[in-house]
Amino acid sequence: MENKQVLIDSLPEGKLKESDYKVVKSEVTKPKQGEVLVKTISFAITAGTRAGLQGSASYAGAPTTGIVMNSTGVGEVVESSDKNCPIGSKVLTQTGWQEYSVQSPNDLTVLREGVDPSLYLGPLGINGLTAYFGLLKVGQPKAGETVMVSAAAGSVGHMVGQIAKIKGCKVVGVCGSDEKCNKLINELNFDAAVNYKDANFRQNLKDATPDGVDVYFDNTGGMILGSALFRLNTGGRITCCGVVSQYDTNTPEPGPKGIPGLLVNKSIRMQGFLVFDFADKYNEATDEIIEWIQSGQFKVLTDEVDGLDEAPKGFVDLLAGGNIGTRIVNVST
Amino acid sequence: MENKQVLIDSLPEGKLKESDYKVVKSEVTKPKQGEVLVKTISFAITAGTRAGLQGSASYAGAPTTGIVMNSTGVGEVVESSDKNCPIGSKVLTQTGWQEYSVQSPNDLTVLREGVDPSLYLGPLGINGLTAYFGLLKVGQPKAGETVMVSAAAGSVGHMVGQIAKIKGCKVVGVCGSDEKCNKLINELNFDAAVNYKDANFRQNLKDATPDGVDVYFDNTGGMILGSALFRLNTGGRITCCGVVSQYDTNTPEPGPKGIPGLLVNKSIRMQGFLVFDFADKYNEATDEIIEWIQSGQFKVLTDEVDGLDEAPKGFVDLLAGGNIGTRIVNVST
Repeated sequence: MENKQVLIDSLPEGKLKESDYKVVKSEVTKPKQGEVLVKTISFAITAGTRAGLQGSASYAGAPTTGIVMNSTGVGEVVESSDKNCPIGSKVLTQTGWQEYSVQSPNDLTVLREGVDPSLYLGPLGINGLTAYFGLLKVGQPKAGETVMVSAAAGSVGHMVGQIAKIKGCKVVGVCGSDEKCNKLINELNFDAAVNYKDANFRQNLKDATPDGVDVYFDNTGGMILGSALFRLNTGGRITCCGVVSQYDTNTPEPGPKGIPGLLVNKSIRMQGFLVFDFADKYNEATDEIIEWIQSGQFKVLTDEVDGLDEAPKGFVDLLAGGNIGTRIVNVST
Repeated sequence: MENKQVLIDSLPEGKLKESDYKVVKSEVTKPKQGEVLVKTISFAITAGTRAGLQGSASYAGAPTTGIVMNSTGVGEVVESSDKNCPIGSKVLTQTGWQEYSVQSPNDLTVLREGVDPSLYLGPLGINGLTAYFGLLKVGQPKAGETVMVSAAAGSVGHMVGQIAKIKGCKVVGVCGSDEKCNKLINELNFDAAVNYKDANFRQNLKDATPDGVDVYFDNTGGMILGSALFRLNTGGRITCCGVVSQYDTNTPEPGPKGIPGLLVNKSIRMQGFLVFDFADKYNEATDEIIEWIQSGQFKVLTDEVDGLDEAPKGFVDLLAGGNIGTRIVNVST
């Protein structure tokens, strides 16, 4: 049986290019005793995986060529001798960019029945849980406070803003186009949205945050983090979630001015985190998010790409800010 | 009655100079009803007050010339109609660099009897409380962890290291001379000390922290913060207490590389604070520190300068790293 795969063909120098990937066909690997074969339904493309191509600084370890590009995906078990995930089970796992993958049952999560599997690549997946824990446990906003989020139309950001609204906060998003700004305000109920590519960005951000900022959920680092620092109130908190401004390059910028001076003067807390730190609370988060989706308070925003061949282009475009919501690649139906 | 005072004569351009100050003699102001007159015994010179001469970014507000240089000091009440601080009381207050100051009883702390007043400029004063709360409440080290502190021979740093030792941590200090390094190790019981002016500083720091760093108490910002970031363990904490590397300049550097990237990858928390945030716990901290001093676990290190006229020189020298321990200016005896 044939397995279409997308391999990392070269490590990107400077910006990622489609030609850094290669589509190949190989024979499906036979699962060994105790392993299962998963047919990929769809997988998510997220900016964070770009860091894995960048050197040893990432938590994902050092990058290599000639291997299947990694990603989280959902799939259906098509061969199994494991009674906990029999044939037909829908699972969440590291499918990678390929049609079939062999998995150990320990490395997959069997999805709840009756829930659309693709939700596990968005609000119920790593992105959604990252938004949930990063905002509520790390940022700790109180009702009435102002929450600012960067990459606000991205897979994590658009969920952060919605969760903050549900918790009674005022929400200001920062993103890279007026189209995205409009969508955040009109479709996702953000109080304001600011385009960081606008020449008046700093003034516009100031105007959009008349009461300052209490929690800044940072997906970008760089200039937007620098601007946020000057809007933060005393006692403000910064959730350090990602550094998308610095992923698609070999030469990361220095940190913003004002670190650590402004942190001292305004008693600001900056906290990095990994969603895995909260693994023992995934179930309660999932319950709460499903409830929000079912009650209509939380809007699922996906941005779909069809077919494995389109994945490299979809990733390059995502890094250039092309997506609104979670970008998902549909592999089979 | 005559009052000798040291005024800010010009706001420093670039590095602070002695000539930025002017010594004058004026008539002592008569206290109004309800106010008291305090005769300064001694005051502390701390690097943090340099930030107050730098612009509006400091919590101390915008700087001006023609006013008495600010500082915390201890003194004796010499005129009073307030029964809570009668004549003869020893008090801690913002004396400034002058022989006499008029104070409202609300703005001073009456010192415990039987305790040397000068201790209130060191371990029992703002420096000591800053070290205590910044380390224990913000940094939250556990016994057995490695604590790194910069400006380790300074008024806050030398106390941070001692408190960390008392709490069972391994302590590594960073300072600017081999003489200071030796003093930290031999007199204050630090496990290691590293001179940041040494060409091999990064390698020496690495060698001195074989288990990485769990808590970094940052008094400097800049290059030392940047180096500390690379030694921090997952789950590490940075107490942002001061930015002495950036005070004596008009053009602060950008923040270190690795912010926020390393914070994300290693779940690091950076937290600024002001000691005033912990005002409700000053008494219990004072009890504990007095106990440590009396039991000999905590060594008081002061660096004394005699006479108001010597204060500007003492401040310039302190900013150049000349002091070991808390620098105190004795005004009257």
